[in-house]
Amino acid sequence: MTTYKAPVRDINFVINELLDYQKHYTQVPGGEEATPDMVDAIIGEAAKFAEEVLAPLNQPGDEHGCKWEDGNVTTPPGFKEAYDLWVEGGWQGLSHPAEYGGQGLPMSMGLIKSELVGTANWSWGMYPGLSLGAMNTLLVHGDEQQKNLYLSKLCEATWTGTMCLTEPHCGSDLGQMKSRAEPQQDGSYKLNGTKIFISAGEHDMAENIVHIVLARTPGAPEGTKGISLFIVPKFLSDNEGNVTERNGVNCGNIEKKMGIHGNATCVINFDDATGYMLGKENEGLAAMFTFMNTARIGTAIQGLAASELAYQNAWPYAMERYSMRALSGSKNPDKAGDAIIHHGDVRRMLLTARAFAEGGRAMIYDAAKYADLMVSAPTEEERDAYENELGFLTPILKAFLTETGLESASNAMQVFGGHGFIKEHGMEQIYRDARIATMYEGTTGIQAMDLIGRKVVLDGFKLYAGFSKKLYKFGFSSLLKGKRRRYSAKLISYTLNLNWKTVKMLARASRNRDAVSAASYDFLMYSGYLSMAYYWAMMAEVAAEKLDSADSGDREFYQAKLETAEFYFSRLLPRAKAHAAAMDSSTDSVMGMAPERFTLR
Amino acid sequence: MTTYKAPVRDINFVINELLDYQKHYTQVPGGEEATPDMVDAIIGEAAKFAEEVLAPLNQPGDEHGCKWEDGNVTTPPGFKEAYDLWVEGGWQGLSHPAEYGGQGLPMSMGLIKSELVGTANWSWGMYPGLSLGAMNTLLVHGDEQQKNLYLSKLCEATWTGTMCLTEPHCGSDLGQMKSRAEPQQDGSYKLNGTKIFISAGEHDMAENIVHIVLARTPGAPEGTKGISLFIVPKFLSDNEGNVTERNGVNCGNIEKKMGIHGNATCVINFDDATGYMLGKENEGLAAMFTFMNTARIGTAIQGLAASELAYQNAWPYAMERYSMRALSGSKNPDKAGDAIIHHGDVRRMLLTARAFAEGGRAMIYDAAKYADLMVSAPTEEERDAYENELGFLTPILKAFLTETGLESASNAMQVFGGHGFIKEHGMEQIYRDARIATMYEGTTGIQAMDLIGRKVVLDGFKLYAGFSKKLYKFGFSSLLKGKRRRYSAKLISYTLNLNWKTVKMLARASRNRDAVSAASYDFLMYSGYLSMAYYWAMMAEVAAEKLDSADSGDREFYQAKLETAEFYFSRLLPRAKAHAAAMDSSTDSVMGMAPERFTLR
Repeated sequence: MTTYKAPVRDINFVINELLDYQKHYTQVPGGEEATPDMVDAIIGEAAKFAEEVLAPLNQPGDEHGCKWEDGNVTTPPGFKEAYDLWVEGGWQGLSHPAEYGGQGLPMSMGLIKSELVGTANWSWGMYPGLSLGAMNTLLVHGDEQQKNLYLSKLCEATWTGTMCLTEPHCGSDLGQMKSRAEPQQDGSYKLNGTKIFISAGEHDMAENIVHIVLARTPGAPEGTKGISLFIVPKFLSDNEGNVTERNGVNCGNIEKKMGIHGNATCVINFDDATGYMLGKENEGLAAMFTFMNTARIGTAIQGLAASELAYQNAWPYAMERYSMRALSGSKNPDKAGDAIIHHGDVRRMLLTARAFAEGGRAMIYDAAKYADLMVSAPTEEERDAYENELGFLTPILKAFLTETGLESASNAMQVFGGHGFIKEHGMEQIYRDARIATMYEGTTGIQAMDLIGRKVVLDGFKLYAGFSKKLYKFGFSSLLKGKRRRYSAKLISYTLNLNWKTVKMLARASRNRDAVSAASYDFLMYSGYLSMAYYWAMMAEVAAEKLDSADSGDREFYQAKLETAEFYFSRLLPRAKAHAAAMDSSTDSVMGMAPERFTLR
Repeated sequence: MTTYKAPVRDINFVINELLDYQKHYTQVPGGEEATPDMVDAIIGEAAKFAEEVLAPLNQPGDEHGCKWEDGNVTTPPGFKEAYDLWVEGGWQGLSHPAEYGGQGLPMSMGLIKSELVGTANWSWGMYPGLSLGAMNTLLVHGDEQQKNLYLSKLCEATWTGTMCLTEPHCGSDLGQMKSRAEPQQDGSYKLNGTKIFISAGEHDMAENIVHIVLARTPGAPEGTKGISLFIVPKFLSDNEGNVTERNGVNCGNIEKKMGIHGNATCVINFDDATGYMLGKENEGLAAMFTFMNTARIGTAIQGLAASELAYQNAWPYAMERYSMRALSGSKNPDKAGDAIIHHGDVRRMLLTARAFAEGGRAMIYDAAKYADLMVSAPTEEERDAYENELGFLTPILKAFLTETGLESASNAMQVFGGHGFIKEHGMEQIYRDARIATMYEGTTGIQAMDLIGRKVVLDGFKLYAGFSKKLYKFGFSSLLKGKRRRYSAKLISYTLNLNWKTVKMLARASRNRDAVSAASYDFLMYSGYLSMAYYWAMMAEVAAEKLDSADSGDREFYQAKLETAEFYFSRLLPRAKAHAAAMDSSTDSVMGMAPERFTLR
């Protein structure tokens, strides 16, 4: 069975020593509340809740799964009780405005909370996680009355939220959506249609569920330009939030899936369901991106969570399993074999997961600063700039960290040998749960096209230039006066190479636009390795700087940080070379085969 | 639900056009029986059995799994009936001597059969597959009486076999084994001990089960030098194979695992079980390698099977799922979106699986020739030489093809987007079933150490030099007169690079032997990509040679072969660069971190 211990020392390293959250919090609203003591207290309490309440429910939740009967969903034993404690603790509204019952802390505090909760029990964490998406959408696009009612209830967490996008015939391509919303005399709408893959779409943990639904009004333009957003509660209510009658919203079934068994993935049928328009007619897709960006960063956290949980549970096994002798001589001569942590390949697997976990944490926590700033910078221009920068990083975070999270989970199973395949150890569950992360909220391929297509080419290379500049700036500055200059040199060289390969690829694209889609995945993965290298280079500088004057416990911590950085630069970053070579290949090597030749051989 | 169609055209390409099995069969015993017509008939019948009998049981087998009750195991519905057909068809003894009831065909025919069976239904195929391991061990090490009784029954398939190696505290490190065998007056032994992870260890498909068990006799030397091999049947029998009383062999439980649910993974308890020594006392480990080598090549087939089945089931979905528009302009203007096969990243995923499947098939089928020759070459020296060459290739085949099989399975799920995670499509089952393959029969890490340690360094580089020479020889010859000279150039350049990096790594190892284990995985993976490049270069030559004079159907086939080769050389082989860079890194980057620093952060 897996256990979870919140990596508090590493979190503190990232927010205090690497990213200087304290200074950052002087610049954002709610930051004045986030004093060092308050931050410590919140992390401590969230860690306790994650470790003691949620982690023990993770494996039983997988085993029991959710049960569907006549439209009702029963969550695994203990889930509801844990949720009641969550409500009591006031956790849901941590980063939402006080006027709707939240605590008004910066967004970044909410993301740290999400890491702890999600690592301990991803399936459980999805219930409040989906609410967050609905809350953010309401916050930005709701009118005052909608916010007072729905956002307040969601902050209180007595109601939960969902996002209803996907239909059986369309996922990423929302322009194909068919659900209909007919306007009524009273200003409300009647919704009809079927949505699938609705996470937390039905359950027994809260009094009411607020569905945020994409649908078309009569006469709406074809495609994505004719989509509007609606609030469709499971139970109707008065304006004070007292529920009245059941709405025409029903859970038709739940999916049988590979993992995240503790979360109900629902088919939701809307039969003349009453809904209320959220935001402007036909502008639903843009509004939906408010949710989508939150969800994508949330999913990036799932990748980090998989790396962290996998690493945490694999290293103790490697310390206690004795097999074979180390090549450099016996390390446990009193045992029949050496602990497998002395074998190079076991270390390779563990260090890979560790480097991805710690590197991923730095990437997400830095992005969280942009999330704070994009709602709080003084001018709209600045807010837009931060939003755009976060928008550039989002597909990298989402795709790269979920892909590496999967690899970490797979490595950690592999450390267990055949035992990794057996359910009782819990390692295979980490993998199964993590496997969805590269698929939902936009597959890796979709993220890759979003990055290279929308965020690089359509943006006219402005954000991409800014990203490169940030890396060069740090790289050259630390090349001149840093303590780990060979990392800076690598950072510069890999950035140059990406720039050059991108230019070449775009030159090919001027002849054949498919060059972009053929190279998109490799461009994204290269960007991911490079971006993580930037954080590892910075972390190595901080650790090297502090090593000599640190006390013994911290010295070990900084030493391990430097060793993990060395592993990252030696053994993981070079993978970008393979991605560069693939990016550099002919478009035809991917696009040349006629579809009919894919057929059986 | 997944379906299976045997890739008969590609199999014929590999055995007839690439590897000239017909000529090969003039040199091996049983080869005279394997006329082209006979080979066609066998492949056709095996394909039919795999497609019609086994494939439909694959998904239900996963869903039902095996049930354990009071020591008895019930296999999924239909498994026993399929097995009865297998027995009737005389499939089990295809490649075993006629004197024990087999058909005496070459080993390679058995491996082709194993691909078809294993791709259709891996869990089912493991029951006869484990028998094969026991059969080969008996064939080489059994005395005449043992062969007449047990081998005959196993060839007939009315009895099945297992291999009982692993114990709870030891897997790969068999020297730690504790099971005991006490000699009895009558020359038999009484066995006591517990074995775990015994695939097909108990089931309801055959009359009797012959366990081949590793155990220690009293006073045996410590470690691997004190292990002997025993035949321990579930039921005792007379010499004609009429079963008499139940032996002291019991299935204590079956494991709950991530995949291969249709196969029973058993805890087997031996309580004063009667056993018979197989081969010589204290030489069990060497004898066990007869089984182990068969099993490792069998597991390599599991990797190929995963790539093949994943590819087969993903491309039709890619042809029928319409989403988004292709970058180079609409391909299905009458639909709301283009078929996703027109998107570069979907193609990348499909072509990766295809290249791994077809490349893996060529690798295994060529190795199968060595398997034929190692039992049939005229002199012992030649037989040893072929066995050694196969021994060199085995860890590459086992580890590289299972790792790439997993990637193929993961890619194929990913093509389905969120639907890939849902059980009904069957894609996630391919992945779950394949996930064991990199762990059992020696993990990838164990294979990597076997390759670099035993097969390269301890062998004094003879086999490694032979491997390199083979690649250079083909590379230079086709560089001079081939039709795809840039592939030959790449083959030569990547071989040179491996040789150089290996020299450097071994220079480091002279100072610190851990350099070998730190680089072992990357050495193996590089060797895998390089080895597959050799076959892709050869396949490209054959296809290019035949393309112009081929009729239209074959022309499409050769064209696709060339396009897949192009994909392999452009997009997959460059990954070896990353492995080379990792091999080239300092030993300390992996071995430097003290074990206690792996602890929580």
